[in-house]
Amino acid sequence: MTREQLFQQIKRKGSYLCVGLDTDIHKIPKHLLATDDPIFEFNRQIIDATHEYCIAYKPNLAFYEAMGPKGWESLQKTVEYIPNDIFTIADAKRGDIGNTASLYAQAFFDYLNFDAITVAPYMGADSVVPFLYKDKWAILLAHTSNAGSADFQLFESSDGRKLYEEVISRSQQWATPDQLMYVVGATRADRMQEIRALAPENFFLVPGIGAQGGDLAQVSKAGLNKQCGLIVNSSRAIIYASGDKDFATKAATEASNVRDEMESLLTRYA
Amino acid sequence: MTREQLFQQIKRKGSYLCVGLDTDIHKIPKHLLATDDPIFEFNRQIIDATHEYCIAYKPNLAFYEAMGPKGWESLQKTVEYIPNDIFTIADAKRGDIGNTASLYAQAFFDYLNFDAITVAPYMGADSVVPFLYKDKWAILLAHTSNAGSADFQLFESSDGRKLYEEVISRSQQWATPDQLMYVVGATRADRMQEIRALAPENFFLVPGIGAQGGDLAQVSKAGLNKQCGLIVNSSRAIIYASGDKDFATKAATEASNVRDEMESLLTRYA
Repeated sequence: MTREQLFQQIKRKGSYLCVGLDTDIHKIPKHLLATDDPIFEFNRQIIDATHEYCIAYKPNLAFYEAMGPKGWESLQKTVEYIPNDIFTIADAKRGDIGNTASLYAQAFFDYLNFDAITVAPYMGADSVVPFLYKDKWAILLAHTSNAGSADFQLFESSDGRKLYEEVISRSQQWATPDQLMYVVGATRADRMQEIRALAPENFFLVPGIGAQGGDLAQVSKAGLNKQCGLIVNSSRAIIYASGDKDFATKAATEASNVRDEMESLLTRYA
Repeated sequence: MTREQLFQQIKRKGSYLCVGLDTDIHKIPKHLLATDDPIFEFNRQIIDATHEYCIAYKPNLAFYEAMGPKGWESLQKTVEYIPNDIFTIADAKRGDIGNTASLYAQAFFDYLNFDAITVAPYMGADSVVPFLYKDKWAILLAHTSNAGSADFQLFESSDGRKLYEEVISRSQQWATPDQLMYVVGATRADRMQEIRALAPENFFLVPGIGAQGGDLAQVSKAGLNKQCGLIVNSSRAIIYASGDKDFATKAATEASNVRDEMESLLTRYA
């Protein structure tokens, strides 16, 4: 999917919501456990219920890998089920050198046909460049929303640059905003504003709304650009809005509420 | 596997060789393609031929993921086939926050029963601590052997510490040398010596010998400690020593030669 196609979808739906498919066999409603593939069945109903309100889905690979080969089958069925005009993100946080990174790219882009994959920057350029495919996206971890992000991402050089700033500046030399996005946590809106100044055109994938406590309005004010530039993820607050048979309806209500707020934020700030 | 058990195996075999099972369907001998599971069949024969000369096997996950669900089955069969007294490393370079990291730990330690997993440090403590299982190991990327390692790992603070040094110092507060190893590339022996001073007791997993050009004698002189402290990996130079029907015999010869050199280096420096 191109940047323009993504932006058109955002405008059409009035939404920049990504639904995180962190589907946990221990958390899904019990009645689904009797089906052939409970993980896929849960995802299918969530997708049916929410696809009008969101522009992206993001399965976190850990949830599928924890299920072994069967988990990969559920993942594959899920990606195939997602409507073609919706952006798909493999939240895999991969990072390995040249030939190995190419194989991960092959696994997620060619085999599973995702539009994007999250990538860890620690190993440098040759661990990121192999993910630069035509009309596909590398989403590089820059400043994450967890407590541990302070351990190394804020490591500061003698001229006052932080590691996450170095990651953003340096990686801009490797790829254009048509192939590269950044993961930018939503827990601090002031930092979002600084990061937007460093990467005015790139899309940011923003975790940390909902269960992790980020504020959508503040983050949007600080981060929206002329082509929206934000994909804001919510996982648990939507997919586990109810733990009962009405889980899909409740997920739709949650997603629809977020979409309504986003539509008004887009009008105000984008 | 405990540190003591690992050390006993090293002494018994006179080897600290890890064989990297980077098994690529496009590189294995053609006659194996007619078997039910060529990837497993190749690994099985490599393991049969080399297990006397090495103390660890390290499948790189990318090679298996690129094959889809079937790749996971080949991986699972491979790990089950490796003799119990040999150390197994999932070279997965995972790095994600708390609950997600726990699921990766579950996938690799509980489901696949690996002894160790390689972990990326970028997201900090809460992406590493979930891998601290009893008698299991987190192997944290510190200073890798690829060209891109210079991009961020050498990022320097105002007091002259480099990022990889910060990773090593800070992570020592999270875990003891009984649970934590580091990935330390073999391409520069002087740096190996500095890193050994920072982490005198930890085991280092050393890639970069063989195809990547590191020198075994220099690296061993700089890195060996009283409990050996090194696991030196070789992948392509061993498993693709021949591309023909004699691949297993040739792999055994290569592994045996490396073992002989290691035995003498252990006597000299450990």
